[in-house]
Amino acid sequence: MFNRLCIIGVGLIGGSIARAARRHGLARSIVGFGRPQDGNNLETARRLQVVDDFYFDIESALQGADGIVIATPVGAIENILTLLKPYWSEEAVYTDVGSTKGNVIAAAERVFGRVPENLVPAHPIAGAEHSGVEASVDDLFRNKRLILTPLDHTQARALQTVTVFWERMGAVVSVMDAGHHDAILAATSHLPHILAFALVDLLGRKDEQTEIFKYAAGGFRDFTRIASSDPNMWLDICSANKDQLIPLIQQLKGELDKIERLLANDDFPQLFETFTYARSARQRFLDQFES
Amino acid sequence: MFNRLCIIGVGLIGGSIARAARRHGLARSIVGFGRPQDGNNLETARRLQVVDDFYFDIESALQGADGIVIATPVGAIENILTLLKPYWSEEAVYTDVGSTKGNVIAAAERVFGRVPENLVPAHPIAGAEHSGVEASVDDLFRNKRLILTPLDHTQARALQTVTVFWERMGAVVSVMDAGHHDAILAATSHLPHILAFALVDLLGRKDEQTEIFKYAAGGFRDFTRIASSDPNMWLDICSANKDQLIPLIQQLKGELDKIERLLANDDFPQLFETFTYARSARQRFLDQFES
Repeated sequence: MFNRLCIIGVGLIGGSIARAARRHGLARSIVGFGRPQDGNNLETARRLQVVDDFYFDIESALQGADGIVIATPVGAIENILTLLKPYWSEEAVYTDVGSTKGNVIAAAERVFGRVPENLVPAHPIAGAEHSGVEASVDDLFRNKRLILTPLDHTQARALQTVTVFWERMGAVVSVMDAGHHDAILAATSHLPHILAFALVDLLGRKDEQTEIFKYAAGGFRDFTRIASSDPNMWLDICSANKDQLIPLIQQLKGELDKIERLLANDDFPQLFETFTYARSARQRFLDQFES
Repeated sequence: MFNRLCIIGVGLIGGSIARAARRHGLARSIVGFGRPQDGNNLETARRLQVVDDFYFDIESALQGADGIVIATPVGAIENILTLLKPYWSEEAVYTDVGSTKGNVIAAAERVFGRVPENLVPAHPIAGAEHSGVEASVDDLFRNKRLILTPLDHTQARALQTVTVFWERMGAVVSVMDAGHHDAILAATSHLPHILAFALVDLLGRKDEQTEIFKYAAGGFRDFTRIASSDPNMWLDICSANKDQLIPLIQQLKGELDKIERLLANDDFPQLFETFTYARSARQRFLDQFES
């Protein structure tokens, strides 16, 4: 599929793309690019044969590359596009894996004037608590959703190539508008992360006085799992998508106001209705998720 | 240990107590009590040999019982104590499994004037998403925390018996004041449930329009697992513990206000501090939980 795949940022996601591409024969050679301070991680990537080689200078990394995947944190994408610009190739296909898409498009517009026709914004909905190339696996994307958010002027060939690339790695590809993507992810991913961080921040400070965590159970462990996510990465994502996220935080506070009022007033029928609606909504989600 | 154990309410918890008591030889015979409308469940309990027999009238159920466990929903405990009162035995030991303790004590005070010396309030921190005797297992309490909240005048013999009963079933027993218990559980269990119900209620209504759940991933499934809990039971628990819960909901809204403001102001250092504090607090919890 590609002659030479260049992965910019060989962490959990970048490393898993490299492994999956190799497993499914999607590239003759795979190289990585990173900063000198990422040297140890890149050495590991080469030692584990996740990449064939790696570079700290972008020109060498791009030499002969016809597929380029930007797999850095969202906040670094504008800098990466600036680095790529002087060597931009009309022949190659570019894509990214950022968890927010509106800001990637805005960054590309700032760097290029308009989003290049052969850059296809993408977001694989997959991840893990752990980070770094050592946590990467070759089936991270299997049966996972992948959302593409092309623009009207995105090249059909590039869109097609990126679609097939992800499908071959096992992903289920959807195409939608970047704004819709960001609204959806704010609701089902970014807001839950904010809630988990908020809850554990609040309770952690209480726990220091009263050892409440000693009596917490498995439900608490599951509910707070996402509070163990990488703070840097989530700072990046939440700030990139804050226009979608802030209204949702406000709506959730409104929902908590409602429940607080119902509890205070012993309004059991309304509370029952709320809890029951939530339970059936989650069942609807599960039916979809597990099918 | 007991000659005859009487389980009032043979659901997930009551059934699991019966199974564990039988497995560890803690009672010569085990009987269940329930309402006529629980007949099918009680028939199942007898068929599965979870109980030796069951009764719809309390006098027969209590005949010869020297250990009585109230395993009904929290909201039914006052009615059960009223039923038990005419047959109360000074020789027997009574306990319950309610998820809130202040209200059980208050209910006993309303029924008896003061809490009987041989009633030991207890709460096993264990459960499952499913309910009913068919979901019961004989190791539900193994390595789980169990909190006893005796009063100053609680009989030492009764306290000792209930402690050993639970320890034999594998639980790790702690003793504390009922108010402290309720504050701890409000924080680590009731508030997370409210949050999960609130989030899924909010997003479920959006999902009906926009299919956001289609793109939710495993993190969302874990985060919302507790929103699949029994609405009746949680209505009961949240309303019983609303004095502890409402201030926590307010504090959490304050925490969300803080994060919203930090996001709006691009205050990255403070956001980073919040997320990082949360992540290390959760690690502290995990170290304890898994040790």
